[in-house]
Amino acid sequence: MPPLEARLQALEDREAIRDLIARYGPLADSGDADGVAGLWAKDGSYAVQGFADAAGRDAIAGLISGPVHQQLLADGCAHLLGPVAIELSGDAATARGHSVVLRWTGQAFEVHRVSANRWQLTRGSHGWQVTLRENALLQGDAAARALLAR
Amino acid sequence: MPPLEARLQALEDREAIRDLIARYGPLADSGDADGVAGLWAKDGSYAVQGFADAAGRDAIAGLISGPVHQQLLADGCAHLLGPVAIELSGDAATARGHSVVLRWTGQAFEVHRVSANRWQLTRGSHGWQVTLRENALLQGDAAARALLAR
Amino acid sequence: MPPLEARLQALEDREAIRDLIARYGPLADSGDADGVAGLWAKDGSYAVQGFADAAGRDAIAGLISGPVHQQLLADGCAHLLGPVAIELSGDAATARGHSVVLRWTGQAFEVHRVSANRWQLTRGSHGWQVTLRENALLQGDAAARALLAR
Repeated sequence: MPPLEARLQALEDREAIRDLIARYGPLADSGDADGVAGLWAKDGSYAVQGFADAAGRDAIAGLISGPVHQQLLADGCAHLLGPVAIELSGDAATARGHSVVLRWTGQAFEVHRVSANRWQLTRGSHGWQVTLRENALLQGDAAARALLAR
Repeated sequence: MPPLEARLQALEDREAIRDLIARYGPLADSGDADGVAGLWAKDGSYAVQGFADAAGRDAIAGLISGPVHQQLLADGCAHLLGPVAIELSGDAATARGHSVVLRWTGQAFEVHRVSANRWQLTRGSHGWQVTLRENALLQGDAAARALLAR
Repeated sequence: MPPLEARLQALEDREAIRDLIARYGPLADSGDADGVAGLWAKDGSYAVQGFADAAGRDAIAGLISGPVHQQLLADGCAHLLGPVAIELSGDAATARGHSVVLRWTGQAFEVHRVSANRWQLTRGSHGWQVTLRENALLQGDAAARALLAR
């Protein structure tokens, strides 16, 4: 690939990954279970603290259609993400950042969850997809902090 | 347009839209009514739950110079945005994401508003501008969730 | 530089600056004092309200290894940033945006700090680095709002 095109491709990769992750919150908070699952590769996984590990798109969609998330939607919620720090390595990438769940209690908005996230992504025939997202609550545990480490 | 330049242009468009939206919070929280209004097209609108719909730049500037926003500034506030998921279509684009207003009560920071946002943007002779921003509180209403839907 | 390459370079610069700032939170919340300090130029500074001004990498690393930040890590915390509005000017840049510190109290997550931030950056032989980050609490003070102003 000519040098200029390689530089362009690297920017496109980073843009695609950032956009993929930015779509999570709007899809989750509009209750779009298939849309959320479609961010992941077919054999992708989501390991989110407080829930059984979800392996494969059906299981990931099940987190959105399941009772905990549906209650959050009924209450009123926002799955807010921070910016992600992206490391590209050919057809693979890692992104690190925070996620925060805000919830309407009926009287006020509360900070319901604050988590560390490590996203593993790969580029396949359908573009960039998530292969593994790990999410752990930042409540003082070293394992959660480790997800954010270089 | 040659293929490489078209790819570059698409990245520039996404960058310009992201930057436009990223400027909202700093402009709002520095009380820059004209700066906020200048993000919108001349005939642009801002439909923000809890306020009368603001059509045109004077009305949008009026939201910033008006008593509710001025009280927030005097209290201490942050109009924090999450990342936006951007869909480009030629000279038009849609961006979806969350916004959160944090407020100093005098004793602590409270989560004052948590909203869904859908931004409609167009590219004109002055570059990308907002034509419509819709904002609705995520308190369990389906209409708010719908702003975030694909 | 040919026009296309200059446009590509401008996008790369913005991407590098955004990524640099996006790395702050994960590095801070994984307790990586050297990693945080390495975002700054050798003679860079961090003026953060509530702490003595930190000039140079050793002093900046000392903010992370110091007792206040270490207590936050032990409690559970997230240094969440919002998007930054970036102004490029050759080998210098300014970025403006919010930062929020969320803390686990042992019983709930609280909004511990909400700040305005102005980042000054320069491009040197090691790429883009922070030369000055100013951080002030948004508790109604005009000086904090001024950091966000155009």
